[in-house]
Amino acid sequence: MTTLGQPLSIETTPIDGLLVVRLQLHGDARGWFKEHWQREKMVALGLPDFGPVQQNVSFNAPVGVTRGLHAEPWDKYVSVANGRAFGAWVDLREGDGFGTTFHLELAPDVAVFVPRGVANGFQTLEENVNYMYLVNDHWSPEARYALVNVADPTADVPWPIPLAEAVVSDKDLGHPMLDAVTPVRARET
Amino acid sequence: MTTLGQPLSIETTPIDGLLVVRLQLHGDARGWFKEHWQREKMVALGLPDFGPVQQNVSFNAPVGVTRGLHAEPWDKYVSVANGRAFGAWVDLREGDGFGTTFHLELAPDVAVFVPRGVANGFQTLEENVNYMYLVNDHWSPEARYALVNVADPTADVPWPIPLAEAVVSDKDLGHPMLDAVTPVRARET
Ligand SMILES: Cc1cn([C@H]2C[C@H](O)[C@@H](COP(=O)(O)OP(=O)(O)O[C@H]3OC[C@@H](O)[C@H](O)[C@H]3O)O2)c(=O)[nH]c1=O
Ligand SMILES: Cc1cn([C@H]2C[C@H](O)[C@@H](COP(=O)(O)OP(=O)(O)O[C@H]3OC[C@@H](O)[C@H](O)[C@H]3O)O2)c(=O)[nH]c1=O
Repeated sequence: MTTLGQPLSIETTPIDGLLVVRLQLHGDARGWFKEHWQREKMVALGLPDFGPVQQNVSFNAPVGVTRGLHAEPWDKYVSVANGRAFGAWVDLREGDGFGTTFHLELAPDVAVFVPRGVANGFQTLEENVNYMYLVNDHWSPEARYALVNVADPTADVPWPIPLAEAVVSDKDLGHPMLDAVTPVRARET
Repeated sequence: MTTLGQPLSIETTPIDGLLVVRLQLHGDARGWFKEHWQREKMVALGLPDFGPVQQNVSFNAPVGVTRGLHAEPWDKYVSVANGRAFGAWVDLREGDGFGTTFHLELAPDVAVFVPRGVANGFQTLEENVNYMYLVNDHWSPEARYALVNVADPTADVPWPIPLAEAVVSDKDLGHPMLDAVTPVRARET
């Protein structure tokens, strides 16, 4: 469900640094307008000043497209441009939080900030969902990711559409289970 | 029409600095994936390194929503997240180019870089179109814009849907015609 008029706010989650951003939609006869990302206001509310350099969009035609779970070596600010999707996250950083999971339903009035080292995934709940995100480093085909399988039994993500009916890439079917994942180390800077 | 696989390219237009970006869509069984904005590759192809600080989305429910024509005091990188819209631009910068217009159909495989001082507008050609853009300064309710009326007879934008049937905000109905617009001066830096 999409809410018109809620004020912008940011919430913490059980995963350290994973933030839920509730977006304000200004409705009128045309539809609505939103500031999807607004550096100044969001940094004031606690969003890291993450400095995006790339915006990606995936178009997901069937219901049940399931992409993930990918912990790229950069931060992400994710949401849907239209439609509904189930979002899921698994902390792959070394330390006490390793394996912590979180999920919520993504809609145009909610975005999630995903810090590097946390694996990101989603499943579409409608046809023709456009999923979009900002990242603060450039992807390249050689980029090394930490990855965990969407079917991992420990993370046990409650995907609304059973994975047997989901549309998953061959690449994503091949990711390791959590017990075989090497925890992501804090970045040496 | 949305094209899968075309390589990323950037084209100039009759409006100085207004650039058309053809985006590469990678198609597969799930749908497609695109780098909507990629600083490094696009700057190498001639896009200004414009440094966005805000991303906006408008949802346009009816066919024929027409928004514009607004020349805010910042650059914009505009497109649709889904659906089709007719985009139109009018140069409001002082000089020989004042009043030059350009238009094209926006779709998920095309984006347009709009330099400050060029008025931006669009009209939706389908229901439920999400229009999105990046900007390199923060909007505020006090921001002063240069504006020109969507019905201006000199710019004579060939809106596909007659303005009599379009959905236009009261604010946009009140903008001046081109002959009453004060040209935007080059920024004093
Ligand atoms: C991530 C990425 C991919 N691509 C290309 C490579 C493939 O041809 C195509 C799809 O790439 P996949 O690796 O299959 O991406 P996908 O499974 O959609 O995963 C993406 O969406 C979910 C996100 O969690 C994840 O970060 C991101 O990798 O797009 C790019 O050109 N640029 C990119 O930034
Ligand atoms: C531009 C903008 C608007 N708003 C609010 C003000 C209103 O409550 C609501 C809609 O604003 P309008 O001024 O009616 O915007 P709109 O007519 O949709 O114009 C926008 O889309 C077309 C774009 O060309 C233009 O830059 C932009 O102003 O959103 C914001 O909160 N932040 C913004 O950045």
